[in-house]
Amino acid sequence: MTKGLLLVISAPSGAGKSTLCLALAENRPEVWVSISCTTRPPRPGEENGRDYNFLSPEEFEKRLKAGEFIETARVHDYMYGTLKKPVDDALAAGKDVALNIDTQGARSVKAHFPDCVRTFILPPSWPVLEERLRKRAQDGPDVIAKRLANARGEIGHLAEYDYVVVNDRLQDALDDLLSILRAEKRRFPRLKEELKYLSFL
Amino acid sequence: MTKGLLLVISAPSGAGKSTLCLALAENRPEVWVSISCTTRPPRPGEENGRDYNFLSPEEFEKRLKAGEFIETARVHDYMYGTLKKPVDDALAAGKDVALNIDTQGARSVKAHFPDCVRTFILPPSWPVLEERLRKRAQDGPDVIAKRLANARGEIGHLAEYDYVVVNDRLQDALDDLLSILRAEKRRFPRLKEELKYLSFL
Repeated sequence: MTKGLLLVISAPSGAGKSTLCLALAENRPEVWVSISCTTRPPRPGEENGRDYNFLSPEEFEKRLKAGEFIETARVHDYMYGTLKKPVDDALAAGKDVALNIDTQGARSVKAHFPDCVRTFILPPSWPVLEERLRKRAQDGPDVIAKRLANARGEIGHLAEYDYVVVNDRLQDALDDLLSILRAEKRRFPRLKEELKYLSFL
Repeated sequence: MTKGLLLVISAPSGAGKSTLCLALAENRPEVWVSISCTTRPPRPGEENGRDYNFLSPEEFEKRLKAGEFIETARVHDYMYGTLKKPVDDALAAGKDVALNIDTQGARSVKAHFPDCVRTFILPPSWPVLEERLRKRAQDGPDVIAKRLANARGEIGHLAEYDYVVVNDRLQDALDDLLSILRAEKRRFPRLKEELKYLSFL
């Protein structure tokens, strides 16, 4: 049984990462898109178990103490984290896993899973990013400023990633992601066992 | 202008490399599939300028002395070689280039173009490879034995390649190749200039 591929996806807010991950899940139901836990309250339209697992600060703290998270991060005064067990189980069962996390989390994941593939999603340009953040009517100006500053910080970690996808047209960005997933499965180091089995190595 | 991507494709005889390269050329007319020169006589069905540039030993020697080849190799008593100028011109014009060459040639190309992408095409199994070689009615048993020995030699260099594609169903192998091409264009190191231009770096 070949182990699944772990695809780490990071992006600043406004790059369209969540939409892209939903499109990935729809297009490749066999890829398990991991859902982060967060103590942040849901935004209008967000659903528990689809966009995030929304946890109370107490529940988050309890699981953190029990060592259940593969990575956690504090962003904009809220806690975010990824549970380890579902990721381990999916990979061991040969399922590919997409992890939608920030750059802090990506570094922890890389330390745990050195053969993960890291992809950074960018907006087409800075003006487009600012425009997208301003259009989120539910955020006040100080929240927007904070998000923009945070986006600059996140984008500063671009060079830690294997791939960069620019999310201008959603379908193009999705096709890029799907190609990365397919191509990475053909990388020589990942195929050693299969090639030995076929007596080619 | 972003430089084109150089995709090096190697395979033992019988892996279906030529058919795959023709399918690539049909599917992506914007990719320039480089044609090797050879002193080997054409097999039935092969066309000059499509399968190979068939050169006389004298013409090959003249061009070799003039330093026109990026790589040359002697295989099965014949000379093979790739002209440098058309590859340089295509890459400089931003065109992607696919180079269909053997493992000796691939090593020379990697030395000249360190950021080339090397893909090895394999048959689904050893028995399938033997079967495919035996079915080439125009080859005698000693030629088949030579080809099989050569295939073993070529496959021995598998570990020098970035990607391995198993050519079982042609369409799957083509989709793998196309994904490799698309994904490699999103690799961080190749995007540095574009990302600087967009002020993301």
